[in-house]
Amino acid sequence: MLLVPAIVSVIYREDGWKWFLLTAAIAAVFGTLLTLFKPRTRAIYVREGLVITGMSWMFVSIIGALPFFFSGEIPGYINCLFETCSGFSTTGSTVVSSPESLSMGIGFWRCFIQWLGGMGVLVLLLTVLPLGNERSMHLMRAEAPGPMVGKLVPRMKDTAKILYAIYIGLTLAEAILLKCGGLTVYDSIVHAFTTAATGGFSTHSASIAYFDSKYVEIVVTVFMFLFGVNFNIYFLLLCGKFRDVAKNSELRVYLTVVFGGMIIIALNIMKIYGGFFPALRQSSFHVATLMSTTGYGTADFDTWPAFSKAIMLLMLIIGASAGSTGGGIKFQRVMIWVKKIIADLRQIFRPRAVTTVRMDGKRVPDAAVQSASNYFALYFFITALFALIVSIDGFSLETNLTAVMTCLSNVGPGFGGVGPTHTFEAFSGLSKIVLSAAMLLGRLELFPMLALLDFRKLFTNR
Amino acid sequence: MLLVPAIVSVIYREDGWKWFLLTAAIAAVFGTLLTLFKPRTRAIYVREGLVITGMSWMFVSIIGALPFFFSGEIPGYINCLFETCSGFSTTGSTVVSSPESLSMGIGFWRCFIQWLGGMGVLVLLLTVLPLGNERSMHLMRAEAPGPMVGKLVPRMKDTAKILYAIYIGLTLAEAILLKCGGLTVYDSIVHAFTTAATGGFSTHSASIAYFDSKYVEIVVTVFMFLFGVNFNIYFLLLCGKFRDVAKNSELRVYLTVVFGGMIIIALNIMKIYGGFFPALRQSSFHVATLMSTTGYGTADFDTWPAFSKAIMLLMLIIGASAGSTGGGIKFQRVMIWVKKIIADLRQIFRPRAVTTVRMDGKRVPDAAVQSASNYFALYFFITALFALIVSIDGFSLETNLTAVMTCLSNVGPGFGGVGPTHTFEAFSGLSKIVLSAAMLLGRLELFPMLALLDFRKLFTNR
Repeated sequence: MLLVPAIVSVIYREDGWKWFLLTAAIAAVFGTLLTLFKPRTRAIYVREGLVITGMSWMFVSIIGALPFFFSGEIPGYINCLFETCSGFSTTGSTVVSSPESLSMGIGFWRCFIQWLGGMGVLVLLLTVLPLGNERSMHLMRAEAPGPMVGKLVPRMKDTAKILYAIYIGLTLAEAILLKCGGLTVYDSIVHAFTTAATGGFSTHSASIAYFDSKYVEIVVTVFMFLFGVNFNIYFLLLCGKFRDVAKNSELRVYLTVVFGGMIIIALNIMKIYGGFFPALRQSSFHVATLMSTTGYGTADFDTWPAFSKAIMLLMLIIGASAGSTGGGIKFQRVMIWVKKIIADLRQIFRPRAVTTVRMDGKRVPDAAVQSASNYFALYFFITALFALIVSIDGFSLETNLTAVMTCLSNVGPGFGGVGPTHTFEAFSGLSKIVLSAAMLLGRLELFPMLALLDFRKLFTNR
Repeated sequence: MLLVPAIVSVIYREDGWKWFLLTAAIAAVFGTLLTLFKPRTRAIYVREGLVITGMSWMFVSIIGALPFFFSGEIPGYINCLFETCSGFSTTGSTVVSSPESLSMGIGFWRCFIQWLGGMGVLVLLLTVLPLGNERSMHLMRAEAPGPMVGKLVPRMKDTAKILYAIYIGLTLAEAILLKCGGLTVYDSIVHAFTTAATGGFSTHSASIAYFDSKYVEIVVTVFMFLFGVNFNIYFLLLCGKFRDVAKNSELRVYLTVVFGGMIIIALNIMKIYGGFFPALRQSSFHVATLMSTTGYGTADFDTWPAFSKAIMLLMLIIGASAGSTGGGIKFQRVMIWVKKIIADLRQIFRPRAVTTVRMDGKRVPDAAVQSASNYFALYFFITALFALIVSIDGFSLETNLTAVMTCLSNVGPGFGGVGPTHTFEAFSGLSKIVLSAAMLLGRLELFPMLALLDFRKLFTNR
């Protein structure tokens, strides 16, 4: 993958290609050394899937940061690591206050790692590596977003291929549409990358506002929205199963919240933008950017009324649909959780009633319900713990809390000191490491990273 | 109960006694009317216990607000209702910016309702009303704080009597110690009332800082701490079961967090107060006031460093021990929840392991574990929903969020616009009603109030 930005460097006659090749060489040596460890058994169960995924993403981030570090374009290794974690996790929080100053090759790499992280580094490998079905499944489960990973087709490998085909197809479509809007080939491609990944890195510090084009804003809004939808929906559409699509309850709730949020926020910010339709343009873009957890900006929403900001913060926490490239807790999980709460309340009030959680007419397995509940518990627990550590830097509660939340949800900007007009540069090294961990935790949905905490069992075979 | 402040009015030769008698008359008429509805069955199960408790507290708050309203000393009925809910729920958030301006009778009533709310309005009735054991149990379970209500002695009625005896004994002890510190009889009694309830109302706008006395601060700190301990501990001490006390894991965690928090915050605020010991005096008082959810103030902790504020916010959410008069989520529940998360993670990583949640060496029943998880889920859900509504007023995220949290945890002050030097006066009527609901929800631990939402079944017999 490092050869792609190297080629970009060569095309633009920059000398950055050597840093990419050096990093590729280091990765090759490191990888070869790792193959010397021969595991006693090659079986991959749940725990192995989690640990492989967690460790791979850590190493990939550590190595992916090297080109930034070698080139010196981002100062200090911790900043480089933060930027790389933000990339692979598709968060989009940045320490680079003027991305215009980056060389073409480094700028491309920054956006390219978002695109790689969007669908999943390991899922990509699944499509090419000769791994058995059972083994690929646990890897894919650990990496793919959402509480219940469905197989589209019987073989996991084929499922991965279909998902990547949809991903590449949609990315290409957006790049072409952006090119038609007058963007350079480079800008069209990197922005298609970062929209597809719902990442949000841009080559301009003004983000999408730089292009000052209604057409570009609409294209980006539509694609941010599309990449926040479960990819299974596109598979169903391709198979012509329109009925199943119409009945999908997650899609319906997603649509309701997106369009409801756009209208409510537009009404709330009407005064600022002098009319409903200019306000709707802003609210649509920002609902799409936060709901899909992309994180592009066209306006300083930190100055919007508290009510709009509260809605946006909730959207940022909920995030996109399961099985999309978006982050956050995910709609499906929130729906399971809310249904669980209602079912449990009913149980308390009417002890003799038998209550189950149902989605799309089917009973949700107890393990999935349990896992969704635990996910919430862990999400809030980690938010509290990390916000406590970040607060050592002395910024406001709003800054600390939304910084952790935006990283954990893989959005990018928050409010206050991490609002859309700020970067994460001001934080201390400790906070940057904690926030980097939050980004990877969020992208992998907590469990793979938490599996790494189980030290005692990590280096022993059962 | 309304006769007590009436007598205070008479003693101080005020004319407020008539408002108390008028309210008592209205309550008597209203109560007599209610007795006309004869239920088909007098059995009290879980749901009946929840509904009776939820409704009683609503009516008690609505009627308890009348003396404030009739006397005109608190302007507007919504403000009176807010103050009364804040009283009965032992929150201590206030809309009265100068409590010095209140008459003696009204000021007494304001603090007396906190004391009544501290141990529970219905539990008090249990000690005098001729109710069967089974029926009293469901009432007491619905009203008493904590995930697992233990019977101290076989009969619920005797349990209630023992708890009230401890409550009255400790209140008296504090009142006498405060009198020894040079306070007036009136100030000693009302501050003993509001400490005992971990309520935090004061007759002075400067709160405990008004007395400017190290002795008073220490007495209040110690008693705030004591009232945050599970009352079962005192019962065990009275029975001489020192071993059981030493083994109590909730007490040990409570002590660790209290003393750990005091030292960490003292180190963090040393610079402000010019030395460790003056800082420790402030941090001890404020850790005790937030942990026990009392809410007195001696300093404007809103100006403290972000790290101290983050710790204090976490303390405010966690709150006191189960079975104390304090609010918050409760230590026992947090401990069950954390143990549950660890057990579930272990289950995911090692699917063949059998994991259970244990407290004090005993297995926690699945229902209690489930209920603790749901409690967290609901707590965060309600916080988000209420903060969204309150944000319509346009205050900062910090103000909105901590206002809801401090009300839901029955503490009193928050940060920002609801910091220790501010009152809740500036909020709109809608926000005050929402925050009043939050206070009652928090005091009754969510479920009794939520049972009232189950409209369909509320007015029909099963």
